[in-house]
Amino acid sequence: MDCVRVVVWNEYVEEKRDAKVAAVYPRGIHTVIADYLKAQPRFQVSTATLDEPEHGLSDGILNGTDVLVWWGHAAHDEVSDVVVERIYRRIILEGMGLIVLHSGHFSKVFKRLMGTTCGLKWREAGEKERLWVVAPGHPIAEGVGESFELEHTEMYGEPFDIPPPDKLVFISWFQGGEVFRSGCCFYRGSGKVFYFSPGHETLPIYYDANVLRVIANAVSWAKPMKLSAPDTEGVSYALWETQPLKDVTVKRSLLLGRVIS
Amino acid sequence: MDCVRVVVWNEYVEEKRDAKVAAVYPRGIHTVIADYLKAQPRFQVSTATLDEPEHGLSDGILNGTDVLVWWGHAAHDEVSDVVVERIYRRIILEGMGLIVLHSGHFSKVFKRLMGTTCGLKWREAGEKERLWVVAPGHPIAEGVGESFELEHTEMYGEPFDIPPPDKLVFISWFQGGEVFRSGCCFYRGSGKVFYFSPGHETLPIYYDANVLRVIANAVSWAKPMKLSAPDTEGVSYALWETQPLKDVTVKRSLLLGRVIS
Amino acid sequence: MDCVRVVVWNEYVEEKRDAKVAAVYPRGIHTVIADYLKAQPRFQVSTATLDEPEHGLSDGILNGTDVLVWWGHAAHDEVSDVVVERIYRRIILEGMGLIVLHSGHFSKVFKRLMGTTCGLKWREAGEKERLWVVAPGHPIAEGVGESFELEHTEMYGEPFDIPPPDKLVFISWFQGGEVFRSGCCFYRGSGKVFYFSPGHETLPIYYDANVLRVIANAVSWAKPMKLSAPDTEGVSYALWETQPLKDVTVKRSLLLGRVIS
Amino acid sequence: MDCVRVVVWNEYVEEKRDAKVAAVYPRGIHTVIADYLKAQPRFQVSTATLDEPEHGLSDGILNGTDVLVWWGHAAHDEVSDVVVERIYRRIILEGMGLIVLHSGHFSKVFKRLMGTTCGLKWREAGEKERLWVVAPGHPIAEGVGESFELEHTEMYGEPFDIPPPDKLVFISWFQGGEVFRSGCCFYRGSGKVFYFSPGHETLPIYYDANVLRVIANAVSWAKPMKLSAPDTEGVSYALWETQPLKDVTVKRSLLLGRVIS
Repeated sequence: MDCVRVVVWNEYVEEKRDAKVAAVYPRGIHTVIADYLKAQPRFQVSTATLDEPEHGLSDGILNGTDVLVWWGHAAHDEVSDVVVERIYRRIILEGMGLIVLHSGHFSKVFKRLMGTTCGLKWREAGEKERLWVVAPGHPIAEGVGESFELEHTEMYGEPFDIPPPDKLVFISWFQGGEVFRSGCCFYRGSGKVFYFSPGHETLPIYYDANVLRVIANAVSWAKPMKLSAPDTEGVSYALWETQPLKDVTVKRSLLLGRVIS
Repeated sequence: MDCVRVVVWNEYVEEKRDAKVAAVYPRGIHTVIADYLKAQPRFQVSTATLDEPEHGLSDGILNGTDVLVWWGHAAHDEVSDVVVERIYRRIILEGMGLIVLHSGHFSKVFKRLMGTTCGLKWREAGEKERLWVVAPGHPIAEGVGESFELEHTEMYGEPFDIPPPDKLVFISWFQGGEVFRSGCCFYRGSGKVFYFSPGHETLPIYYDANVLRVIANAVSWAKPMKLSAPDTEGVSYALWETQPLKDVTVKRSLLLGRVIS
Repeated sequence: MDCVRVVVWNEYVEEKRDAKVAAVYPRGIHTVIADYLKAQPRFQVSTATLDEPEHGLSDGILNGTDVLVWWGHAAHDEVSDVVVERIYRRIILEGMGLIVLHSGHFSKVFKRLMGTTCGLKWREAGEKERLWVVAPGHPIAEGVGESFELEHTEMYGEPFDIPPPDKLVFISWFQGGEVFRSGCCFYRGSGKVFYFSPGHETLPIYYDANVLRVIANAVSWAKPMKLSAPDTEGVSYALWETQPLKDVTVKRSLLLGRVIS
Repeated sequence: MDCVRVVVWNEYVEEKRDAKVAAVYPRGIHTVIADYLKAQPRFQVSTATLDEPEHGLSDGILNGTDVLVWWGHAAHDEVSDVVVERIYRRIILEGMGLIVLHSGHFSKVFKRLMGTTCGLKWREAGEKERLWVVAPGHPIAEGVGESFELEHTEMYGEPFDIPPPDKLVFISWFQGGEVFRSGCCFYRGSGKVFYFSPGHETLPIYYDANVLRVIANAVSWAKPMKLSAPDTEGVSYALWETQPLKDVTVKRSLLLGRVIS
């Protein structure tokens, strides 16, 4: 079976304590996204939240996850370092995909993967955003045309302190005068990461057909690759291993420290 | 149906006039590659060659082609400029994928797409080549482990005069002292291009399981994206069109030429 | 002496036939840019125009040029293919830098170097443009702060059909709803190319302090590198040469064509 | 004055405790590199080591440093987290350059900046390495020809777990069958980072003319940019600031939470 196994993670904090958020996402942002993905046979979808044991991301669950979708905003610091390390290693060493949404730019795992501050400008004014596709052949941009609009959005603006994306898919225009690299692909270790900036807890961004389509496209793009040939014993891809190749025939008689004497 | 429609193109010249080539590829290089791809239900495969009318690449055929695989060596100059332009436009404007093999680095269409000389070093000595994966999460590298070897190969070496690849997937090591960027992805217009250097007309490179797997992976990667949302009227993606957006309300009363007076 | 030898080239057509253009650039766009560069001791500056013999770009002149700045708009087709080829080879093979301004996106040499159509959206409405720096450490962005504005500008918008830039320095915001990759670095052969979109023949863009600063920064960035060590005999960097290395000891006895028998 | 202020940092541990290391670098690796740089008027050079107070990298010293060259091998864990954070912030927020040598791939600051494990293969066999230039126009490759050799070297091989370099300058070939991305540029925040893999504590790599030339080239390339225009009040580039632009006139009356009601 070739289903991509997706876990949609949400800190699920603001929906429970803030009526304005609950009005938009009564069952949580994760549920809206997961419901959309579940409707497509290519995905096998579950959800997880901060207050579950191990945030719902035990070793067992992560080992069965191909792509993790991440929403966090108010509770980044409450995410356990142990779980972050587990996610990180699953991405880098085993190729799990990661889709980071909106305010997840300041999540522990995204900052860890980027190595930069991930700072940005922002403004809550309900202004218009237009996302332009600058990589028309890229699978994450499939089906959305050359641009699409969000009528009311939170502004995220440059400078965005990320490494230059390995592939820039969307650039956003904002009514107030800013631009933003709003859809960015990163290759890290054996894994793939996509950052997608649209989203807000009190704006219905995650009901937008184009936003949902991009998230689904990104999940398909980010799925892990099988690293070894299925008909061999399986090359184990271990980054820390440094074994000499079998056919190396170098001057081992030449002892280090003597070559310059 | 989601089959990728592939055409494997071969100039098919040397196999017919040179016994040494025919000994390795009696029915042509294209047939060997096409046979491999045909065995996989995800592809719908046909072939085309130089001496067919329009080189087997009429408008009708190209319009029904998702990905074109290209082998050429001795007869680059005999390929019609009209057909080259047709292929080029189908890639750039409509997103057809292109897989360029080995000596295809000097084909008209590849040089046109790259904009550089595409020059390289080469040596025919039957030496060993080892291809290292430097993008472990990339779908084109799926299933080949961290490296694989070709026991006897023609050397293609740096400097290779191409634009910096948008994604570098393989770097080759050669026994004689060279390296080569042997697997390179390029995004051009709406299309995707993959250059893959292994191959030779008198060496059985295209029978190698890993080489064939990479070509099949590349075909899947290079398939066109649907640019517009299927449930809308269809955004026409025309690169030369420059129509104002419907909601633009700029100072049209401000006549050009007067703004500085 | 380490002066960068710059030639500012202008087709110099519209300034001579159109009063509105002449009102803004009475001695031509090239003169305004050249005057700015001449005021800096790090540059040695001259100009050349379309109606000079060989467009002012003879072999002798090009061989003494480190960086060529290019303005063209109405007369792209009148530029001789011989001169274009000469410029092209000087860039690719010898490392001359090229700065392409505004409507030069459709010049022969830029299209040749890019390999794409270089199409884009455009609109003449005198609207506001804001250029955002997305590569703050890059020398081309030095001294302009995190963004700067042009009060009245021609819109150039995405999709811009170029290869993904090797380094994206500026993204422009336009009042009317578009974005544009307005400052793009490309490495091609031994040369460096910078495309910078601001500019217009009837708007005083080339009097703007930030625009001029960026052009000067780009000239410094694009200067050629000395490819070989000055204290050696000089490695000749010829892309078409393919000589075996001195210490290669491969199985030359292994005749091609026999390895599979 | 436009001198680049360089600090060459060395943990300076093995040279003091191991006679084989001291035989090659009696006054420390840092001294050899610093002496070379000091001979060039474009640099103002000092050194710092692990056992100095604050590792010789106090706030005062770092604030006066344009580019930091880093050698570490046996004592990565002894580098204070406080100093690492200070270096990190000086790079990201203020644009200091960083040149990381050889075993510095596992230094705290490099791993922090990359966000990956920075793992690699290695082998100490004194084999031959040949470094190929794959970015002939890049200033870091200036003057070394199309390739250069190190007769006896430690092998560092792929897979090298780094983000795809923003610019790949060198690829190394090793006698034993590996390749390595041996010269890699990264843009991070306002700063620039260059990783250069040649080097060893008991091999005289840092006396090699080409290796030293590349390090000097890299120092010049990595120097900080002045971010704001010198003739303005100075735009403060603070990544965490998110102030609205002065001319923003968006629908502030539109209260969040109401837009969907």
